[in-house]
Amino acid sequence: MKLRMGMVGGGEGSFIGTVHRMAAELDGTIQLVAGAFSSDEKRSIRSGTEMYGLVPNRCYNNYKEMLLRESQLPADQRIDFVTVVTPNHLHHPVAVLALESGFHVVCDKPATFTLPEALDLKVRIDQAERIFALTHNYTGYPMIREARHLVQIGALGKLRRINVEYIQGWLADRLEVLGNKQAEWRTDPSRSGTAGCIGDIGTHAFQLAEFTTNQKVEWLSSDLSTFVPARRLDDDGNILLRFEGGPKGVLCASQIAVGVENNLSIRLYGELGGVEWSQLEPNSLVVRWNDRPFEVRRTGGPGVHEPAVEATRLPAGHPEGFLEAFAVLYKNFARAVRQCASGTAIGNCEQDFPTIEDGIRGMAFIEAAVASSQQNSKWTKLTTE
Amino acid sequence: MKLRMGMVGGGEGSFIGTVHRMAAELDGTIQLVAGAFSSDEKRSIRSGTEMYGLVPNRCYNNYKEMLLRESQLPADQRIDFVTVVTPNHLHHPVAVLALESGFHVVCDKPATFTLPEALDLKVRIDQAERIFALTHNYTGYPMIREARHLVQIGALGKLRRINVEYIQGWLADRLEVLGNKQAEWRTDPSRSGTAGCIGDIGTHAFQLAEFTTNQKVEWLSSDLSTFVPARRLDDDGNILLRFEGGPKGVLCASQIAVGVENNLSIRLYGELGGVEWSQLEPNSLVVRWNDRPFEVRRTGGPGVHEPAVEATRLPAGHPEGFLEAFAVLYKNFARAVRQCASGTAIGNCEQDFPTIEDGIRGMAFIEAAVASSQQNSKWTKLTTE
Amino acid sequence: MKLRMGMVGGGEGSFIGTVHRMAAELDGTIQLVAGAFSSDEKRSIRSGTEMYGLVPNRCYNNYKEMLLRESQLPADQRIDFVTVVTPNHLHHPVAVLALESGFHVVCDKPATFTLPEALDLKVRIDQAERIFALTHNYTGYPMIREARHLVQIGALGKLRRINVEYIQGWLADRLEVLGNKQAEWRTDPSRSGTAGCIGDIGTHAFQLAEFTTNQKVEWLSSDLSTFVPARRLDDDGNILLRFEGGPKGVLCASQIAVGVENNLSIRLYGELGGVEWSQLEPNSLVVRWNDRPFEVRRTGGPGVHEPAVEATRLPAGHPEGFLEAFAVLYKNFARAVRQCASGTAIGNCEQDFPTIEDGIRGMAFIEAAVASSQQNSKWTKLTTE
Amino acid sequence: MKLRMGMVGGGEGSFIGTVHRMAAELDGTIQLVAGAFSSDEKRSIRSGTEMYGLVPNRCYNNYKEMLLRESQLPADQRIDFVTVVTPNHLHHPVAVLALESGFHVVCDKPATFTLPEALDLKVRIDQAERIFALTHNYTGYPMIREARHLVQIGALGKLRRINVEYIQGWLADRLEVLGNKQAEWRTDPSRSGTAGCIGDIGTHAFQLAEFTTNQKVEWLSSDLSTFVPARRLDDDGNILLRFEGGPKGVLCASQIAVGVENNLSIRLYGELGGVEWSQLEPNSLVVRWNDRPFEVRRTGGPGVHEPAVEATRLPAGHPEGFLEAFAVLYKNFARAVRQCASGTAIGNCEQDFPTIEDGIRGMAFIEAAVASSQQNSKWTKLTTE
Repeated sequence: MKLRMGMVGGGEGSFIGTVHRMAAELDGTIQLVAGAFSSDEKRSIRSGTEMYGLVPNRCYNNYKEMLLRESQLPADQRIDFVTVVTPNHLHHPVAVLALESGFHVVCDKPATFTLPEALDLKVRIDQAERIFALTHNYTGYPMIREARHLVQIGALGKLRRINVEYIQGWLADRLEVLGNKQAEWRTDPSRSGTAGCIGDIGTHAFQLAEFTTNQKVEWLSSDLSTFVPARRLDDDGNILLRFEGGPKGVLCASQIAVGVENNLSIRLYGELGGVEWSQLEPNSLVVRWNDRPFEVRRTGGPGVHEPAVEATRLPAGHPEGFLEAFAVLYKNFARAVRQCASGTAIGNCEQDFPTIEDGIRGMAFIEAAVASSQQNSKWTKLTTE
Repeated sequence: MKLRMGMVGGGEGSFIGTVHRMAAELDGTIQLVAGAFSSDEKRSIRSGTEMYGLVPNRCYNNYKEMLLRESQLPADQRIDFVTVVTPNHLHHPVAVLALESGFHVVCDKPATFTLPEALDLKVRIDQAERIFALTHNYTGYPMIREARHLVQIGALGKLRRINVEYIQGWLADRLEVLGNKQAEWRTDPSRSGTAGCIGDIGTHAFQLAEFTTNQKVEWLSSDLSTFVPARRLDDDGNILLRFEGGPKGVLCASQIAVGVENNLSIRLYGELGGVEWSQLEPNSLVVRWNDRPFEVRRTGGPGVHEPAVEATRLPAGHPEGFLEAFAVLYKNFARAVRQCASGTAIGNCEQDFPTIEDGIRGMAFIEAAVASSQQNSKWTKLTTE
Repeated sequence: MKLRMGMVGGGEGSFIGTVHRMAAELDGTIQLVAGAFSSDEKRSIRSGTEMYGLVPNRCYNNYKEMLLRESQLPADQRIDFVTVVTPNHLHHPVAVLALESGFHVVCDKPATFTLPEALDLKVRIDQAERIFALTHNYTGYPMIREARHLVQIGALGKLRRINVEYIQGWLADRLEVLGNKQAEWRTDPSRSGTAGCIGDIGTHAFQLAEFTTNQKVEWLSSDLSTFVPARRLDDDGNILLRFEGGPKGVLCASQIAVGVENNLSIRLYGELGGVEWSQLEPNSLVVRWNDRPFEVRRTGGPGVHEPAVEATRLPAGHPEGFLEAFAVLYKNFARAVRQCASGTAIGNCEQDFPTIEDGIRGMAFIEAAVASSQQNSKWTKLTTE
Repeated sequence: MKLRMGMVGGGEGSFIGTVHRMAAELDGTIQLVAGAFSSDEKRSIRSGTEMYGLVPNRCYNNYKEMLLRESQLPADQRIDFVTVVTPNHLHHPVAVLALESGFHVVCDKPATFTLPEALDLKVRIDQAERIFALTHNYTGYPMIREARHLVQIGALGKLRRINVEYIQGWLADRLEVLGNKQAEWRTDPSRSGTAGCIGDIGTHAFQLAEFTTNQKVEWLSSDLSTFVPARRLDDDGNILLRFEGGPKGVLCASQIAVGVENNLSIRLYGELGGVEWSQLEPNSLVVRWNDRPFEVRRTGGPGVHEPAVEATRLPAGHPEGFLEAFAVLYKNFARAVRQCASGTAIGNCEQDFPTIEDGIRGMAFIEAAVASSQQNSKWTKLTTE
């Protein structure tokens, strides 16, 4: 039987709600059956029925109602988990109530509104003994998993230089006053938090760097900017990084790089080899060596390792994209939920997806980046305490 | 309510069955509920329950049983349409019985085993007044639709040169004797028909050329080859093309181009402009002009036209791939089925997907290509009568 | 001491004369000292002094005068060789007189106006015991030499499929009536010969295919077109190829592929591996295998073989281009001339550049391509007799 | 008549001497006639005669002797200018003596060993009234000139973000102790100065950023590293930049990015548009806009502006590379020298190449980068006083 999913947020005008629905259902193990898509009742029902094909009585006015009423349904009908795709300031209350109601949780990044909230959320997750996945979806790409594997087996040698970027141009103009809902909440401190660009996409870059290298950023020196006049949060930033154990790097994030679509890229150089990847052509991984020609590993192609193969659905040459990568997280989440459901201790479930640990790191990154920038790029320790 | 889909073929070891399931369900309008996945009863049930999460009583021993028993289910339970993903020789009998049983049909390409079968199938479709879609899935890519639109509005001027290729390398060795089921039936004349490579992938290239240009190939001169010793069907071919109205071109198809994944590409050059596209990077369309720099149009990006936008789900920079393109056909098919169900005359349903007409053209192409090659590349008229 | 070069043709309005001058002088072993740049006396002098910085008394009215008067100069002043860059119909008379005057010859392609002329020229070269180089300049690219080497050592296995293209768009409009001198003579049968596009650039593609594979085209089936109204020679063509020993291929040449700059590309697929190269990014060679990721060999990079290294001047990452490749032919030509001058028997001089043999093959190719096209693409044997 | 060039440095084992010779002579306006190629007499003569084809009596034991004896030659024989290609610590003394001897000077970058030397050199140049060119050769690429032009005409709007990188991998291992002469002096503080990587290639990136944007870096925050054990100078660095007037950026330089050849790249994003360029494919310039598809401008192609056209020799599609870009500087230098020789006041000569001003900026950059890094990335003002 498929796992049943309930969504909070993701109503009309949302892009990410549909993404979660498609990603969750792609591998045939999950089905969206309920949701509180909007705080406006009519809108929630309209979203549920028209966008998601749900029956009206599973479309709720708000998340509290949804969690309460779903809890009261028979076990073979009620949702198994809740996906949280609201603006950032609601992540913590929704997730906490979902956990307390006994549901597993999938939550969009950044995990919470503040670092203390993220730390608190971790406590709640542990107490609830539920599965919690954070959708740093770019980790689902097979070639990211290949890159990470190459680091893990030492193929690249000790890492030295790390360049990670997340560059967009869609906020080069002041869309937030032109009726663009995506722009509105992302540039509103009361819904986004203390950071704009660096929280919205810088966290993805940061998490990707730590995920791929399996190493932690220890110090950072940040220069955040707000280029668009009257914007209230940063829309661009450059951050020097020092990782534990010696590697150094740079993280660039921007939403004002006019004309650039969505270029998350990462390059790692070690003593023996290097890898280069860009989300815009996600099925290729350039692997460089000093003593032989560079090679290009491909999703589904020869020579890639098991972690990449596991995240692949199609033969080489059949491009897999953003949704497929996203779906890898849901596929692995579903496996963990089933293990949990069949009695496996929570600590023994395979949690092959970003978790609240990534969320805490991400919030600590945001706080350190903002603090450093406010102190004229002072080197700031990234601490999660 | 979602449309209910029944599948014939696509059992264990099949790649394409899962592809159809994922593509059909992606947009939330279709759900696979039944299937005759294998002629082996246990295998069919195992496939249905394990690969597709179906309940056992909707997994049938064979397509005849499925069509009969599904017909007897209440209207709100039985399947709405049948997807045919068997080897080629079964397309005609399955499709015909499905139509006669009152179901709409989605069929894998090539449409049938022979041209007469395809012509016959068209008659049956017309008689049955059902929707029939042929999954030339590559037509679903947004940038293919942009290319076609540029031709249609005359932006490229009168076309002159057309290069279309479908190049693979996976059959460079004799996999058909090494237990590879995909290779087995594709190289077996009793299941594939008179052509190997040219039928399996050459038809995709042919259809893409006619689809994108909206012009018909009138004459061809073909040189087919079998490079792998003891193989029974062609595994490579080069074909000169002459289109109605003057354009000329070349079609190259190969399954022995060692190391090449799945490179379907098309280039069109008219009097005023040109376009170039490759399935390996499907979200870009190069558009060339003589008097200004070439531009690259992108899925979801600025400047693309409505037919491309309609086939796009995500903002620019979120790569869409093979499954998303495939799903466009199902999405459009579902719309036509709903229109039909709500009483629209069959001729007025929007059939924005390849149909039996494409299937007939494809079969005529195969027959002409084989005939020409057998006559030392004699120019052969492509006729559908 | 540098070799002294005299040029015939290449006056004002010529592009190729300057190219030859730059290429010849690049490696410091040759210097242009004389020329008959135009049949118009004033123009010849003006070209020589202004374009090439020569002293007026080495700028001649015509090639006969140049060859005569240079012959009479002291041995340490007179030219060592003649470069022929006239329209095609003058190649033979100029080259023959140069040889008879005792000079070595560098000649632009195609070698002559007709096949009989090319055969005759070979006799003259043999008689004169002079060095003759034909500037199929694209053979000078290091990555072409790497590709050829990979074929020669059997790394790709027995070849099966060969795709070669030379695609341009600059003649998409009827420039020949708009005062473009390059277009004028290239579309004029009295100066170009029986073929337009296929002679001008098709020969480059043909020669590159034979050079790289070290195999000969035996049969061809050709479909040449003239798309621009009132043009007198072909401006586009597609040719099926059958090589001695079994490989098959396609040659596409076009000058009406609007917006395409100068895309000479070649792809070779054998039983074990494949290579792909395009002149537009000439410093990369894609090398494909069935069992491991594809690699990209680079000019000056690790893993490339001696023949490529010899043709390279700069470390990897310092792009070498068209002129550098061209200069490789002159560098090798200069070496052969010096060997000859120092008494090495002509047959023992290292002639690592295209010669009259390539010229004869090229003329035979043109004649066969035109003949086949005139006979509705009849398979035509490529014969040099 | 060609200008006569004398070289200091560039003997056996040198890569850059030959580069200068080829670049200087490419356009037919300059000829190398003399040199002091090595402080070892025999080696200097051997280099001059074998590498450069000079007569022995123009090969000198050292630069002082060359400058003295060349000064004494008749005006129509002696050199017109001196090219300085020694290790960095000799730039100042050689250039100064050359100027005092009445010669124009071409000097490799960085201009001098220290900032005070560079400031002093400027005074000497002004006093001598000679032309001085600094070979920041990458500014010679046509597409760099196109990018700069787009900035100048305001096509990109006010600039916001600038990313510039110069990434190599050749020093990932400790080559300086393995007999690699290039590595030896570059990692030796007594010959290179206070900086390694950041002086050797970081200065190129810095100059390219200022050249292309026509804006000055005002502040920087630098994190330099030495990754290879026991190396005496930095081999990697990341630098935050703040430009006068508001733009921000990042400069990354590395010589330990294993497997990367020579990737100098620059990206500029303004309010209206952006440009992206990489030296590894130097003939393309990506130009991005928010409201229409991105375009790719090409060397020699349609739509590019006069400054790019002036730096181009060949039609589009005939790749120009490193040497051709380098030669643009020499071509422009030769023009200025001729203007000067024909009596134009030094201030009125067209000096379309980097000059001592760039040299001073470069030395100031190096000093600020080193100082900032030593003070834990303190924001440091880039001052040239």
